[in-house]
Amino acid sequence: MIKAAVVGGTGYTGVELLRLLAAHPDVELDVITSRSEAGRPLAELFPNLRGCLDLAFSAPDVGQLLACDLVFFATPNGTAMTMVPQLVEAGVRVIDLAADFRLVRADEWEAWYGIPHACPEYLEQAVYGLTEVNREALRTARLVANPGCYPTAVQLGFLPLLEQQRVDTEHLVADAKSGVSGAGRKPATGTLLCEASENFKAYAVPGHRHLPEIRQGLEAAAGKPVGLTFVPHLTPMIRGIHATLYAQLHDPEQDLQALYETRYRDQPFVDVLPAGSHPETRSVRGANHCRIAVHRPQQGNVVVVLAVIDNLVKGAAGQAVQNMNVMFGLDERAGLAGIALLP
Amino acid sequence: MIKAAVVGGTGYTGVELLRLLAAHPDVELDVITSRSEAGRPLAELFPNLRGCLDLAFSAPDVGQLLACDLVFFATPNGTAMTMVPQLVEAGVRVIDLAADFRLVRADEWEAWYGIPHACPEYLEQAVYGLTEVNREALRTARLVANPGCYPTAVQLGFLPLLEQQRVDTEHLVADAKSGVSGAGRKPATGTLLCEASENFKAYAVPGHRHLPEIRQGLEAAAGKPVGLTFVPHLTPMIRGIHATLYAQLHDPEQDLQALYETRYRDQPFVDVLPAGSHPETRSVRGANHCRIAVHRPQQGNVVVVLAVIDNLVKGAAGQAVQNMNVMFGLDERAGLAGIALLP
Amino acid sequence: MIKAAVVGGTGYTGVELLRLLAAHPDVELDVITSRSEAGRPLAELFPNLRGCLDLAFSAPDVGQLLACDLVFFATPNGTAMTMVPQLVEAGVRVIDLAADFRLVRADEWEAWYGIPHACPEYLEQAVYGLTEVNREALRTARLVANPGCYPTAVQLGFLPLLEQQRVDTEHLVADAKSGVSGAGRKPATGTLLCEASENFKAYAVPGHRHLPEIRQGLEAAAGKPVGLTFVPHLTPMIRGIHATLYAQLHDPEQDLQALYETRYRDQPFVDVLPAGSHPETRSVRGANHCRIAVHRPQQGNVVVVLAVIDNLVKGAAGQAVQNMNVMFGLDERAGLAGIALLP
Amino acid sequence: MIKAAVVGGTGYTGVELLRLLAAHPDVELDVITSRSEAGRPLAELFPNLRGCLDLAFSAPDVGQLLACDLVFFATPNGTAMTMVPQLVEAGVRVIDLAADFRLVRADEWEAWYGIPHACPEYLEQAVYGLTEVNREALRTARLVANPGCYPTAVQLGFLPLLEQQRVDTEHLVADAKSGVSGAGRKPATGTLLCEASENFKAYAVPGHRHLPEIRQGLEAAAGKPVGLTFVPHLTPMIRGIHATLYAQLHDPEQDLQALYETRYRDQPFVDVLPAGSHPETRSVRGANHCRIAVHRPQQGNVVVVLAVIDNLVKGAAGQAVQNMNVMFGLDERAGLAGIALLP
Repeated sequence: MIKAAVVGGTGYTGVELLRLLAAHPDVELDVITSRSEAGRPLAELFPNLRGCLDLAFSAPDVGQLLACDLVFFATPNGTAMTMVPQLVEAGVRVIDLAADFRLVRADEWEAWYGIPHACPEYLEQAVYGLTEVNREALRTARLVANPGCYPTAVQLGFLPLLEQQRVDTEHLVADAKSGVSGAGRKPATGTLLCEASENFKAYAVPGHRHLPEIRQGLEAAAGKPVGLTFVPHLTPMIRGIHATLYAQLHDPEQDLQALYETRYRDQPFVDVLPAGSHPETRSVRGANHCRIAVHRPQQGNVVVVLAVIDNLVKGAAGQAVQNMNVMFGLDERAGLAGIALLP
Repeated sequence: MIKAAVVGGTGYTGVELLRLLAAHPDVELDVITSRSEAGRPLAELFPNLRGCLDLAFSAPDVGQLLACDLVFFATPNGTAMTMVPQLVEAGVRVIDLAADFRLVRADEWEAWYGIPHACPEYLEQAVYGLTEVNREALRTARLVANPGCYPTAVQLGFLPLLEQQRVDTEHLVADAKSGVSGAGRKPATGTLLCEASENFKAYAVPGHRHLPEIRQGLEAAAGKPVGLTFVPHLTPMIRGIHATLYAQLHDPEQDLQALYETRYRDQPFVDVLPAGSHPETRSVRGANHCRIAVHRPQQGNVVVVLAVIDNLVKGAAGQAVQNMNVMFGLDERAGLAGIALLP
Repeated sequence: MIKAAVVGGTGYTGVELLRLLAAHPDVELDVITSRSEAGRPLAELFPNLRGCLDLAFSAPDVGQLLACDLVFFATPNGTAMTMVPQLVEAGVRVIDLAADFRLVRADEWEAWYGIPHACPEYLEQAVYGLTEVNREALRTARLVANPGCYPTAVQLGFLPLLEQQRVDTEHLVADAKSGVSGAGRKPATGTLLCEASENFKAYAVPGHRHLPEIRQGLEAAAGKPVGLTFVPHLTPMIRGIHATLYAQLHDPEQDLQALYETRYRDQPFVDVLPAGSHPETRSVRGANHCRIAVHRPQQGNVVVVLAVIDNLVKGAAGQAVQNMNVMFGLDERAGLAGIALLP
Repeated sequence: MIKAAVVGGTGYTGVELLRLLAAHPDVELDVITSRSEAGRPLAELFPNLRGCLDLAFSAPDVGQLLACDLVFFATPNGTAMTMVPQLVEAGVRVIDLAADFRLVRADEWEAWYGIPHACPEYLEQAVYGLTEVNREALRTARLVANPGCYPTAVQLGFLPLLEQQRVDTEHLVADAKSGVSGAGRKPATGTLLCEASENFKAYAVPGHRHLPEIRQGLEAAAGKPVGLTFVPHLTPMIRGIHATLYAQLHDPEQDLQALYETRYRDQPFVDVLPAGSHPETRSVRGANHCRIAVHRPQQGNVVVVLAVIDNLVKGAAGQAVQNMNVMFGLDERAGLAGIALLP
């Protein structure tokens, strides 16, 4: 049994991680910390956990964390980096679901997140936890930077094209749509039901923090700089991301369906749909799959890739569990067999 | 392993049953019939099942059904009754998720369902599958009438009061609210998103088919006739039933909280919330629990009971699996450990 | 032209009032105050007003208000009462959309609202603005207490039965369901889209502030004390209230349809639907109507009344405009001809 | 007064047209035809119209239509073209809200719509009713092809760039998201609340009927062929279209904000938002405005245009009324002053 702790379990990423870990056959979850909710039973915040995970939040206590095999950080950006060195040095493995270790370059991180990085020397040793790219490195990783939700969908959608040099990398477009849970559980006017339901809008068009993360991953796949326009949108539903990706093909005659099927043949959580399909976000609601379809409309030279994930599962907590499974030598699918809830 | 078949798996009750059975450790599901969709892979209708249950619908074939231990009917009302005698006589056990065997009296059934009953002699031998009431009879049942969604929530909410003679049985009110999946997957104007979202309405106030079913159960619990007003409403969400129940107490000083906790202490799927609680439908989304709270507003002589279920789980497919577990001597919770999806 | 001001226009009641007043042919709206948003254009908060009402919020300034014919308060409870005496003494008429003047008895008000009342001597002279009850008194009112949203729907639904002594007043039940906009625009966890959509729950069952307000109105209609159980619920939509009302008839044989049609024959904003109808909240979305249907299920002795309003219109801003029209001798329907938005 | 008729008023475009015409000061609406609903009061289908437009549907009768000044067709594609010649020859003006006259070339129309065109000789004389492009021609038009919903948003968004030759016309991308009402009121599985809510998906990526219509308009603006990739998506809400448009700038240094403001300065229903804005679909819910923002992310050479409309208003019925106003010499804004409903 993996002895695990969750730091900061009061947000949506946290509750989803708790849901998955509570049902995981190889995990013993003893500690869930929250400074603000210390002493309060989980089920008061998250009534779905009542009877399933009868723990209370506790105040953060480094001693407790040091006694664990693995610590998940489901905290706001900027928290994990203050505790990671102590844990990692002591041999505790860490998966950070926030953004602290996602960018390789400290200056870029600081420019986008607006604060100094507390331990920039860890940025290089952190393994970026897009399992389908870094599985081998994850097996021995001490510190894993779990990818953002948009970056997961956009990278999985673009990777085959970039790795195989099939498209013009100067003019990539990622038009992404997210459910509202991506904005978190903190009270804010913009995510009230009365503001966000029956409404659709783009946001952060001038620049979103996931842009450098996506670009970094795409450039690694392409082996060269890429020109990417990334526009996120808020769509009136709770869960789900739909990425619609556009690129210009070098050779329109290539077999894109085969390209995708080959790339993802051995990936248990990436599902390439039959040619002509349109994946729906609900087909992965609560599940760890990414479902992808690839199109070449009107037999032209533009490829359109459609990729859907549940932003809280493959885009956050599920991928964290998937990474944990790899790190600890378990079946990659352990604890992740849940079927999407439909309708 | 229980060799099971599902007849008519193209509706929402069907897909939910398939989701649960696919993950059940003791069930081997070989046959899913649908006259209209014969030959079509399940995943085309239900993309959540892709990669999880790679079967196709088949045309109904009695021979195949007779080879099973158990047949679930997830068909429209009036279908199961045409096949049940043949199956039951051959020793195949049956759980009907439709209404064919829910009422004891054939004349009443025919009055509410508007067609002659094909095998009225089976009405008395059918066991009404409200597990919390009929667990013992279910162990040996050959034919189980799985309760309706509203009847499950309303009966579980009222039972302790009626069984213990605590309220005036002449003036019971059940004000029930259902998500739209209760209306099924058949195309209809009234359940289009553009008609049913951002809208709330009562329906069938003059008389709903679940009224006689509820009344039958309440009268059995009370041991005498009851006067019940039942008003169902359509609420703009996919899953969930919330029953708000009103009755007049004989003795306002009694301890209602204890009454409920005692009644449901040993019921794995009924959760009595702490005094003062307000259960939310999302706390059981995708899960088989019924969560209940009991109130006496303003310390008066009216008791208000709040009961929530997922209409497709405890109100349909989950309760069917729970009944199957009892019928076949399994742990009642087998295959039903899924935690509700929140948010 | 009526020279009008709105104090506190940053909530949903405020923006709806602005929408209605901007289109009203007899109103000149010069002043909209907000301490927190002073200087900010309305359209930044409420993009629907862009190009339609090009004003900015201003800091509250008594001098400006004293120059008006009418001041609307769309402020939180407890604000209007600090300014009303000065305005009313100076001859400015006031409509308070909050609760400060809705209860006649100061001790009851203070018990439910938890603060001392700043000007209890105004409670008796305030006219309760349920137009269909107090139209005559409104014509000359100096201070109008605009009713709450639930109280409007519940009172309009019960009035004919109580005024004509048709039901047992000891056992009234009002099961009411509201869209989320009733909870206001202030950020709060419970009204986030991810908490309130795909969810249904009761709240405040032990006691809601609208209970004494409703009871006061029902007792005035009945001419005696009433026993009322009032349970509010949150339903996952933006606008709309549906009240489902239950009472026991003295004489089941009476013609309830005629009773309602007669009572509301001359009320331009109360629409009694044909017998057998089920009103939908969307049929009044954005409109000032209350639509009502009356049922006697199963020809029994229980009457069920269904009443729907838009909580922000007839339940708040629209009724305020209706009252203004009456106060200033205008056509009661002026500025309120908008047709509900469907779908 | 314009004597007007609506043919086929049973869909969402129809009810929205009725809502607008009922409130229009210069229109007398006498005839609303529906073969299937003949004799039925409008308010039975559309309860929002109860008390506002007390007419019944009538069976189509050419004599009645010939007595009108103007006939609106709110029928499925392929209906108007069978009646238009007779009406137009008799001097009755026609606005077709369906697609029958939107494409100039008959062969292209037949390829996309799959049936022979009944009166191809009318395709050239029909005026395409994008008011902001063809206002002058509309004044004397006998037959108006009211634009599709996606084409309205996409063309208004792209026009300034194309008319002024500012972008590479070979690589235009239009990623468009629509509320479900765009799919109509006909019962269908895919638009049930339980299928379309809490879900997001692209559809018709291989080719949507609005593609040739958009391309035709963009090519007219650009004066040359364009390469357009158009991907429509279904978003879980009732009303609204959000078009996100991408193009590569010839000269990144140009002042795009001024370009858009200049182009639309005199257009009463196109609102160019301040630089840096993100328009929301709810800001035009029920209103005839198109709101547009223009961005150049990361100061690069890609322009991103965001354009929102209400698909049933500016995307259908509202634009039809706007066109009627132009055709009959009225104020273009007559009957279209309604403010968007928010929240």
